[in-house]
Amino acid sequence: MSARRPVLGLLAQCRRTPGRLSNPRCRRGLSTIPDAQRATPLFARYLSLTALGLLVASPLFYKMAVDNTLMLDSPTLAERDQLAKLQPVDDASPMRLRMEKFVKEQQREIVRGLEAIDGGKFRIDEWKRREGGDGITCVLQEGNVFEKAGVGVSIVYGKLPKAAILKMRANHRNIVNDKAEIPESLEFFAAGLSLICHPKNPMAPTVHLNYRYFETANPDGSSGTWWFGGGSDLTPNYLFDEDAILFHKSLKDVCDAHNKDFYPKYKKWCDEYFYNKHRMESRGIGGIFFDDLDGDAQDKETLFAFIQDALKSFIPTYTTILNRRKDMPFTEKEKEWQQIRRGRYVEFNLVHDRGTAFGLNTPGPRVESILMSMPLTATWKYMYEPERGSREARLEEVLREPREWV
Amino acid sequence: MSARRPVLGLLAQCRRTPGRLSNPRCRRGLSTIPDAQRATPLFARYLSLTALGLLVASPLFYKMAVDNTLMLDSPTLAERDQLAKLQPVDDASPMRLRMEKFVKEQQREIVRGLEAIDGGKFRIDEWKRREGGDGITCVLQEGNVFEKAGVGVSIVYGKLPKAAILKMRANHRNIVNDKAEIPESLEFFAAGLSLICHPKNPMAPTVHLNYRYFETANPDGSSGTWWFGGGSDLTPNYLFDEDAILFHKSLKDVCDAHNKDFYPKYKKWCDEYFYNKHRMESRGIGGIFFDDLDGDAQDKETLFAFIQDALKSFIPTYTTILNRRKDMPFTEKEKEWQQIRRGRYVEFNLVHDRGTAFGLNTPGPRVESILMSMPLTATWKYMYEPERGSREARLEEVLREPREWV
Repeated sequence: MSARRPVLGLLAQCRRTPGRLSNPRCRRGLSTIPDAQRATPLFARYLSLTALGLLVASPLFYKMAVDNTLMLDSPTLAERDQLAKLQPVDDASPMRLRMEKFVKEQQREIVRGLEAIDGGKFRIDEWKRREGGDGITCVLQEGNVFEKAGVGVSIVYGKLPKAAILKMRANHRNIVNDKAEIPESLEFFAAGLSLICHPKNPMAPTVHLNYRYFETANPDGSSGTWWFGGGSDLTPNYLFDEDAILFHKSLKDVCDAHNKDFYPKYKKWCDEYFYNKHRMESRGIGGIFFDDLDGDAQDKETLFAFIQDALKSFIPTYTTILNRRKDMPFTEKEKEWQQIRRGRYVEFNLVHDRGTAFGLNTPGPRVESILMSMPLTATWKYMYEPERGSREARLEEVLREPREWV
Repeated sequence: MSARRPVLGLLAQCRRTPGRLSNPRCRRGLSTIPDAQRATPLFARYLSLTALGLLVASPLFYKMAVDNTLMLDSPTLAERDQLAKLQPVDDASPMRLRMEKFVKEQQREIVRGLEAIDGGKFRIDEWKRREGGDGITCVLQEGNVFEKAGVGVSIVYGKLPKAAILKMRANHRNIVNDKAEIPESLEFFAAGLSLICHPKNPMAPTVHLNYRYFETANPDGSSGTWWFGGGSDLTPNYLFDEDAILFHKSLKDVCDAHNKDFYPKYKKWCDEYFYNKHRMESRGIGGIFFDDLDGDAQDKETLFAFIQDALKSFIPTYTTILNRRKDMPFTEKEKEWQQIRRGRYVEFNLVHDRGTAFGLNTPGPRVESILMSMPLTATWKYMYEPERGSREARLEEVLREPREWV
């Protein structure tokens, strides 16, 4: 244990450094949720999207969160990163730290951008995972423009058990060397930002966005397998072609600047993923969705650049759409249709979304972070059918047959 | 094919007999849903509760529904029963016909009872499965007392594939003779009634009830394995001990009249099943729940008598509770709490309820029958916490720690 003491001493110092993990905009400080409840934060969503195999890992995450990590003899990935963060994070830093820094910066930018359009303030809850990692959940509820808007960041350190490693090999052959014995567990890191906005005005569309980075550590502490995932999609209640075109064009421009294959591929993937199959209709008019984007060291830089551009393009595009719609007049009937569509959104998130299911089925989840994606209100009317030829019926047609918008 | 013609001729006559399958109270007649959509009705809910293994059967149900059943050489179970129904159904009839008759009668009784208390009228949709079986979905929406009340009956004929038979053997050893070879498929029958009422007044509790019968046919057409399942549970937003006691006492009285072991066993099963594990709380204050109740010919009579008494006890008990609560004054804050609790109800039904998941994941489900269980409206507020010591907080305490009410 002697080799371990200096590391622990340093860590203790880190933990005492005020403001290191605190958000300057924080209005509530650390959440008062008990540790056991904090153990599996929102990030469970992204994890499951990166690999369903992780499902089996959840009891372990929980166990680790309540165990005393100081029993180990060599520093964990979380501990190494705590030390590394004493230096400024730059392009030479490990991708873990760069991604974490980037999503936390973007969260602040997005919160600022959405507050500017709404006029209201986000509630900001920071929470920590005892064994490493933390999260910030920002929610603006019952604002002027938004019924509910949530922007969450999660940083997770954990261990993948053997079963999860074996499943991940399906998409990532190099997760363990073909000739090497499969270890009992592998340390992993995951970081991501997730966002959902449900505006009040039924003419203004709901939007969802999520970008994430996943990495395993080799037994010697160096970076192992890694991949990026993410995307963004739009869910209007009333279809304005110009909004759909702008949203898709903005994503296509970002994609094309990096790789001409991205947009057609990820647009299709999005249409396939956000599909309410029991209703035989899409959740919305799509966008882009991708997962398991990996490669060599050069690819990692290229993909990170892509993710950065994609995330940065969100606020300008969405605020343009919101400014067109947020003050439009609407009828009670149109508000009712919005509430029906909200019901479909709930159905997708609770029935089909792998990330939500994974999060909720993990012991001791931070439920309020996972379910910040729920609309403030939703309606289910038995046998509700839009009038033939109405704008509501037109939306349904497009949801049944995804379109090419650009 | 010659041996088959007389049967088909008789069946054709049956199909032409007007009113045979029509409900005299029907205000809409047969649903206009396309056949493919009707293929897997509400009954999927009960099926999955009887055996998760049936999941694998769903593509087959669908295929059967769109296939031409007249290709077979011997009459199907559905065809045999169509013939048998030309005679009056009595105590000597197969349980399939007795259960179908009973649940359809009870549906009319319950609809009449709920209409009497509400003053409004149910919308009644009848639908058929092409390969055998039918259903009636009754919904009263935006009434005087009920936000939404649904009473559904489903009669299903189908075939269990080998994989489902193998899984069912876990609970029903006699589904195939131990020494016999497992057949490629087995015909089955299932009938049940399902009910959910969401009253408007937040002081009045939501109630759910479901009773079902399942049977397989031996290759020679005789009855094979069978079982009953069902139960009823109460979900108040505000806890009135006298309602909880009345509800449980009424169920206990019915149970005790048949078997003193039933109530304690099925009360516990109910607390375990209707549990929102991601919230670490029960859906409501429970009731009874049971499944796979089988035995010999005598047990079948005894259990049917129990099911009948349990179902018949519903209206007197629930209307007593409703009459106490439906006109109580309430505040806006109390209505809001009701809507939060509705959100939890949606979470249970969409995330944890095996029957709903099964139904929605089956190709071409009659979604509107499955989701008649959804409340008319629901709310999700981020980090909503009842005040310490409030009535809302007291309900949460009881939901976290199920109580013995009688």
